[in-house]
Amino acid sequence: MINFHVLTLFPELFPGPLGASVTGRALEKNLWGLNAINIRDFATDKHQTVDDVPFGGGAGMVLKPDIVERAVLSMPTHGRRIYLSPRGKVFNQKMAEEFAQESNIILLCGRYEGVDQRALDVCGFEEVSIGDYVLTGGELAAYVMMDSVIRLIPHVVGNDATTGEESFSNGLLEYPHFTRPAQWTDAQGIVHPVPEILTSGHHGEVAKWRLEQSKTLTQLKRPDLWTIYEQNKPKKT
Amino acid sequence: MINFHVLTLFPELFPGPLGASVTGRALEKNLWGLNAINIRDFATDKHQTVDDVPFGGGAGMVLKPDIVERAVLSMPTHGRRIYLSPRGKVFNQKMAEEFAQESNIILLCGRYEGVDQRALDVCGFEEVSIGDYVLTGGELAAYVMMDSVIRLIPHVVGNDATTGEESFSNGLLEYPHFTRPAQWTDAQGIVHPVPEILTSGHHGEVAKWRLEQSKTLTQLKRPDLWTIYEQNKPKKT
Repeated sequence: MINFHVLTLFPELFPGPLGASVTGRALEKNLWGLNAINIRDFATDKHQTVDDVPFGGGAGMVLKPDIVERAVLSMPTHGRRIYLSPRGKVFNQKMAEEFAQESNIILLCGRYEGVDQRALDVCGFEEVSIGDYVLTGGELAAYVMMDSVIRLIPHVVGNDATTGEESFSNGLLEYPHFTRPAQWTDAQGIVHPVPEILTSGHHGEVAKWRLEQSKTLTQLKRPDLWTIYEQNKPKKT
Repeated sequence: MINFHVLTLFPELFPGPLGASVTGRALEKNLWGLNAINIRDFATDKHQTVDDVPFGGGAGMVLKPDIVERAVLSMPTHGRRIYLSPRGKVFNQKMAEEFAQESNIILLCGRYEGVDQRALDVCGFEEVSIGDYVLTGGELAAYVMMDSVIRLIPHVVGNDATTGEESFSNGLLEYPHFTRPAQWTDAQGIVHPVPEILTSGHHGEVAKWRLEQSKTLTQLKRPDLWTIYEQNKPKKT
């Protein structure tokens, strides 16, 4: 079982949305574990100070190295240590699959301006980013990372087949979906039929159409992913 | 003021974590607005069905086109329509800055397998992804997008200077941060001083050091961003 140990100044935000729906039911069934720890509990002065002004000046506050180290050393386990930061390696589906194999993951959520670099180095944190944008804190990034990992744990998502055929699982974006009615009349009175092939009952043809759709979408929308897909596909001999 | 209209099957998840801390205080002060709408309210049968099996077979369920269209048409405003999906254009700081200029943003959060493609096309949804990974639903992606946009609204983040000098604001990753003590002794008894320049008091030298650090970090960790930075920098004449 995978246990997430979340170091945060807002432990009340956990499990938060992860306590609802699919991930929430999985938590109740102990398919994953959660340990949210308040960084402030490791402050030693009477004001429970956790941050201080940055050396060299500038706006914002920085989490103090001694407090972060104490919090990390209090962890009962020595799992993988992740600091959620826009400077990190960019998280993707492959990393989610890798993380889903771990037993313990320690997630450090920064707030304010950031964390003293010495604490990150000494504690051996890997910096991981969920994307090229800045958030008010690491907590939302932790949700995203945890959710993408938890849903890969067996028996979490209703039908395990669902996670096998979706965006990124084959290096391509997912094909479009359609459901009833087969002839949909929109509010303007225009009729929109579903692609004929999908109602044909020819499973092989449907699979072929979906793969073509995935390829076309990826080429169009994500030439970067398409290049990687083309490089990795097995060469014909 | 920017208003977010969130179409979701889990309206109780909003504002959720965005009701805490900086974003929460900004919501109280009406610096941004929130309207969370339950998609299920637009079902018309007695079971309040919102989804159906996909044409062509496969796992998962698909949100029905008529229900999505009805939900969108109920919106009082005609803002930008965003469908959060891993197939979308990848969200970044530049898009956050762009979204922060809008008055109304409609965010459609998918669950299950996805949304009928015809509804997305007819309603003119832009597909946007927060990164190359799959989530159990669009709600966490909505949090991330909203948070990154809200913090750019004037007066939301305590010191407005904070958002001007951070990762991506100049196309580079942010430099490392340090705070007191200047000489930090870790739990092993090893002393870690902060870089000398930061305690020198020479503002010009500090700024130069930080820019160099940002450049080195970006080159090392994100050659993709470095290439863009090099292409965009003003040429010397």
